[in-house]
Amino acid sequence: MHIPTTRIAILGASGYTGAELLRLLLCHPAADIRVLTAERQAGKPMADIFPHLAPFNLPATVKIDAVDWSEVDFVFCALPHGTTQEVIAGLPERVRIVDLSADFRLYDPAIYAEWYGQPHRAVDLQASAVYGLTEHARPALLVARLVANPGCYPTAAMLPLIPLLRAGLIDAGSLIIDAKSGVSGAGRDAKQANLFCEVSEGMAAYGIGRHRHMPEMEQELALAAGGPVQLSFTPHLIPMNRGELITTYVRLVGNANVNSLRAALAKAYQNEPFLKVVPAGVAPATRHVRGSNHVHMGVFADHRPGHAIVISVLDNLVKGASGQAIQNMNVMLGLPETMGLNQVALFP
Amino acid sequence: MHIPTTRIAILGASGYTGAELLRLLLCHPAADIRVLTAERQAGKPMADIFPHLAPFNLPATVKIDAVDWSEVDFVFCALPHGTTQEVIAGLPERVRIVDLSADFRLYDPAIYAEWYGQPHRAVDLQASAVYGLTEHARPALLVARLVANPGCYPTAAMLPLIPLLRAGLIDAGSLIIDAKSGVSGAGRDAKQANLFCEVSEGMAAYGIGRHRHMPEMEQELALAAGGPVQLSFTPHLIPMNRGELITTYVRLVGNANVNSLRAALAKAYQNEPFLKVVPAGVAPATRHVRGSNHVHMGVFADHRPGHAIVISVLDNLVKGASGQAIQNMNVMLGLPETMGLNQVALFP
Amino acid sequence: MHIPTTRIAILGASGYTGAELLRLLLCHPAADIRVLTAERQAGKPMADIFPHLAPFNLPATVKIDAVDWSEVDFVFCALPHGTTQEVIAGLPERVRIVDLSADFRLYDPAIYAEWYGQPHRAVDLQASAVYGLTEHARPALLVARLVANPGCYPTAAMLPLIPLLRAGLIDAGSLIIDAKSGVSGAGRDAKQANLFCEVSEGMAAYGIGRHRHMPEMEQELALAAGGPVQLSFTPHLIPMNRGELITTYVRLVGNANVNSLRAALAKAYQNEPFLKVVPAGVAPATRHVRGSNHVHMGVFADHRPGHAIVISVLDNLVKGASGQAIQNMNVMLGLPETMGLNQVALFP
Amino acid sequence: MHIPTTRIAILGASGYTGAELLRLLLCHPAADIRVLTAERQAGKPMADIFPHLAPFNLPATVKIDAVDWSEVDFVFCALPHGTTQEVIAGLPERVRIVDLSADFRLYDPAIYAEWYGQPHRAVDLQASAVYGLTEHARPALLVARLVANPGCYPTAAMLPLIPLLRAGLIDAGSLIIDAKSGVSGAGRDAKQANLFCEVSEGMAAYGIGRHRHMPEMEQELALAAGGPVQLSFTPHLIPMNRGELITTYVRLVGNANVNSLRAALAKAYQNEPFLKVVPAGVAPATRHVRGSNHVHMGVFADHRPGHAIVISVLDNLVKGASGQAIQNMNVMLGLPETMGLNQVALFP
Repeated sequence: MHIPTTRIAILGASGYTGAELLRLLLCHPAADIRVLTAERQAGKPMADIFPHLAPFNLPATVKIDAVDWSEVDFVFCALPHGTTQEVIAGLPERVRIVDLSADFRLYDPAIYAEWYGQPHRAVDLQASAVYGLTEHARPALLVARLVANPGCYPTAAMLPLIPLLRAGLIDAGSLIIDAKSGVSGAGRDAKQANLFCEVSEGMAAYGIGRHRHMPEMEQELALAAGGPVQLSFTPHLIPMNRGELITTYVRLVGNANVNSLRAALAKAYQNEPFLKVVPAGVAPATRHVRGSNHVHMGVFADHRPGHAIVISVLDNLVKGASGQAIQNMNVMLGLPETMGLNQVALFP
Repeated sequence: MHIPTTRIAILGASGYTGAELLRLLLCHPAADIRVLTAERQAGKPMADIFPHLAPFNLPATVKIDAVDWSEVDFVFCALPHGTTQEVIAGLPERVRIVDLSADFRLYDPAIYAEWYGQPHRAVDLQASAVYGLTEHARPALLVARLVANPGCYPTAAMLPLIPLLRAGLIDAGSLIIDAKSGVSGAGRDAKQANLFCEVSEGMAAYGIGRHRHMPEMEQELALAAGGPVQLSFTPHLIPMNRGELITTYVRLVGNANVNSLRAALAKAYQNEPFLKVVPAGVAPATRHVRGSNHVHMGVFADHRPGHAIVISVLDNLVKGASGQAIQNMNVMLGLPETMGLNQVALFP
Repeated sequence: MHIPTTRIAILGASGYTGAELLRLLLCHPAADIRVLTAERQAGKPMADIFPHLAPFNLPATVKIDAVDWSEVDFVFCALPHGTTQEVIAGLPERVRIVDLSADFRLYDPAIYAEWYGQPHRAVDLQASAVYGLTEHARPALLVARLVANPGCYPTAAMLPLIPLLRAGLIDAGSLIIDAKSGVSGAGRDAKQANLFCEVSEGMAAYGIGRHRHMPEMEQELALAAGGPVQLSFTPHLIPMNRGELITTYVRLVGNANVNSLRAALAKAYQNEPFLKVVPAGVAPATRHVRGSNHVHMGVFADHRPGHAIVISVLDNLVKGASGQAIQNMNVMLGLPETMGLNQVALFP
Repeated sequence: MHIPTTRIAILGASGYTGAELLRLLLCHPAADIRVLTAERQAGKPMADIFPHLAPFNLPATVKIDAVDWSEVDFVFCALPHGTTQEVIAGLPERVRIVDLSADFRLYDPAIYAEWYGQPHRAVDLQASAVYGLTEHARPALLVARLVANPGCYPTAAMLPLIPLLRAGLIDAGSLIIDAKSGVSGAGRDAKQANLFCEVSEGMAAYGIGRHRHMPEMEQELALAAGGPVQLSFTPHLIPMNRGELITTYVRLVGNANVNSLRAALAKAYQNEPFLKVVPAGVAPATRHVRGSNHVHMGVFADHRPGHAIVISVLDNLVKGASGQAIQNMNVMLGLPETMGLNQVALFP
């Protein structure tokens, strides 16, 4: 089979999501990695920035201003929130984009301004962006120019909740999302709080009641529920590199029970290559999806009558970021959706 | 100051709680460690069982049957659930006991039988046992012969909840307790599930909706609430040795809010040497109590109106087990409650 | 390209090297996984033994006695040392084998008996076995029926030492090999010493001066040196899942120096896809090869005149075990040597 | 017993060794903690800098310039190398000092200049400083005003080597010191290389052949050997918070063997409260000394005739830094040497 290649640029290639895009794209048969940018480390070979990439033949990093856009068809944008808007606004119209920042995830500029403390500077672009939770966005992705890749927490939390809300099995007014994440989600910047000695052998919650992934979930879950949702969201930092586990406490509607929830999930995702509903009695574990694009999810009885517990796990750098970004690219380009994403989880 | 010593036996000294009792008692000025038992490893010096205790002069382990009870005044029982009942039933009446198992925590034998799958074999003793959540049990501890040391999760979860329920600030019918624990709580038995490679770099929930610490919490919280409580309890295993963090989602009653909850906690525990209510905006972290008998707790706004989030942390081997056991002994013997428990947390 | 497939059996599929063979073979275009054996867990689906493999369609495990050998062309044998000999002796002549145990690594049955405490029970087979350090065994591998896959430590230690000894640059009489390994090398059996709490946040040496990988290194290094070698070998257990780092202290011969050593290595391995000589000043790190079949190696000045330090790293489950086993299979079958082994290291 | 207290200042209280001094001094009956300095965070309560110290009543941090020296008798100086010299030169003559930096460890200013790249700015003070490897410095410590606290690696490496060199049992011309350390030794500054994701699940050597602890060891070991020594020293970073393990490869002199070495160590340290020579066959492990001031050491046969392997372990923040500093203070002040240092290791 001849696979035509797409010429790719990764903007912000010196962070963890940039490295993860490279890990996956280097084995993607349709990817032709042409441009890597890194503002502060421009000119450095990738082998210096990420020695694990030393065995591969990669372009040296450049500044965004120095990119020759005539040799780029597709952009993965892994820049910090805020700076992303202007960069993407300046890209040639011909180029299609998956943006891994939060900049284009919120449809309503007012909500963006409320949570990010500044007005959105590319409101027109935002209006045309597609929220790329792949399994629920395929038709729009096919024609999208700009895709907002979902946050890691929203991806993990919403994949089980959307079918349950759509089926009217759970109450949209009472969703308690207790999230636990590995440290790579915090990025590669040198911060004291993320030093090994500050993180290992311990845990804590953070951003309690005010994490920026909350409005993104409210927006998308409201679409699934057909009306406003009310949720509580508390993330915790766990001493591990990768992995995210979400424990969601839900109220059942009508005669719904654990079995009907599990059946609804299984049916909704029966043909999904990356989504697995675990059997009764099996607890999803992050180590079972480490390094893979898979999501495992399960439903469990709550000791309180009329409630249930939904647990989902993923690798925050793969399905929670770079893997889903490539999955979105595959859909956008009409490629097989699993292309380059067949890695088996790395265990142990 | 002359401190009269108490002659102590530790039954089950080869597990982690046994080792932790020794770590603390070796620096306790009133403790005279006379007897250590270990059924399968009887005769072994402690230096072989726990090389970190090699520098100390400790008695060799014996079987329980071989103990000369005439030289023992006080017993810490760190035996497995189930076998504990008969051992304690056979102790001389003169000896006072803190039992670290679950065998004497439940007042109602029917509930014990329901959760442990067998009838209780020392119902009379159970009737006289005191549930030793120290800060809420002092008068009874003073005269108790047998103290049931609380489980680690119940200690961490209930210390903040009891004052809030007593003050009528939170709803007893809706308590969602999401718990996260280090691995030492799982004990020292060789089990594949607890191997380093099965635990590190990953996390999962376990005992979802049916963990045995649940009835213990229902029993004690009902006393605080003055009526039945309804709770959901889900523990998760975190890749760290020690530490437990509890995130409890509560419904507020009447005009209660985050500030009134925090104030109620601060007032209830203002004179407690081991309990600290953290200021607004500070997230309790397990690493801040590692190796110490302290509990840190905080109250946080929930994004859902009319709700709040309570977070508490402790070291599961100290305040969650051996430290609280010694704190109980101190009260039982009329010693200063903090004696031998002044360790500062080990950080990093 | 049409790739004819090979029908594969993995004997001992319930251990970590078995799981790693599956991780890699599931993405290998020429591998047709037909048979998986697990004596004690026979009949179990792999999803129960290794939940991370649940998304894949794999045969259920059987006992070795139940295998229909007519549907197997190639065997990976990941059984414990000792039992392997008889199993392999019983395989049909037609089947080719890569054995991951130590049973066929030592040419001299007397040395086997000395280190393993029992006579070898398949001496004839041993005589025909090829020691599969791939980069130094290709011609023999092409025609071999039985390949003894090297130990993880010998692979990591010898890859840099063999070219240096062959070139006469270092003294064969003074090799000090200080090795550090992650825990997965200790296997999946439930042993107290490998519990998370016994391993994490600590380290120790083991098998000091008498580890069974020593005779294997003496045998192969003597071939490279053209005469007997004398070595010291001390392994240490490090609290991480995967990865092995070897620090070798060598005495220089004649005018050899750090630069000539580095140049000799670079020349020897200039066309090797999996072996990378790092530039001066770069320290090889296990995290740069995690999950990949790569070996990074470097040469450093020793503060003592006339000596140098050689450092090499690999993933003990990949190039140290299952990856090299597949690399050997590729050579044996005339396939491209890197087939199925192009994974980029998983970082972080 | 009435214990007169000493009024103490800790200069540089916001780093890990500062925190560790506080952990230990808070339980030291003769310590009156009066002054804590932190230049960049001056004015902050310690509860903000180190939340694990929140339960304790500690002075807020000040700048060094703001210290009222009339209320200080004793100084622990935990400042960075280089800036230390001038600060100590400015202290009142009356004040006695233990300096935890490297600034006063080297007797020869030329060697200081060679390794630190600048001339020493307090040569007079350096001449009077005592190198505080406590067990080998007691007479000098009693009268010293300024004590240079040894580095963590030198402490761990030299404690076993000094008696062996003094007894003429090992060759001073061939010492290969392979060192492994936890991450807390790297300090609390925000550096990308020390982020959790850059350190966990991996290891690497650093400062290969040029680590600054080398001249310190050459100086002190030469004194023990009665002539120059030649050593190789390579440190490695291990993914754990605390702990240091040194594997030293030694050449035996004359008829010396493993047993005579072990006997010499046992005799030299038979009355030492913190130094333990482990029995034959026991491997020292860092987890057995975590949080304690103990050093465990053992001697092992080398596969090479005429050589042996010496292994020693300590907690780099305790005996490797703050614990030894307090041990030195105890000797300087004529207090019992173990005062405040009786903590049992924290395991697990």
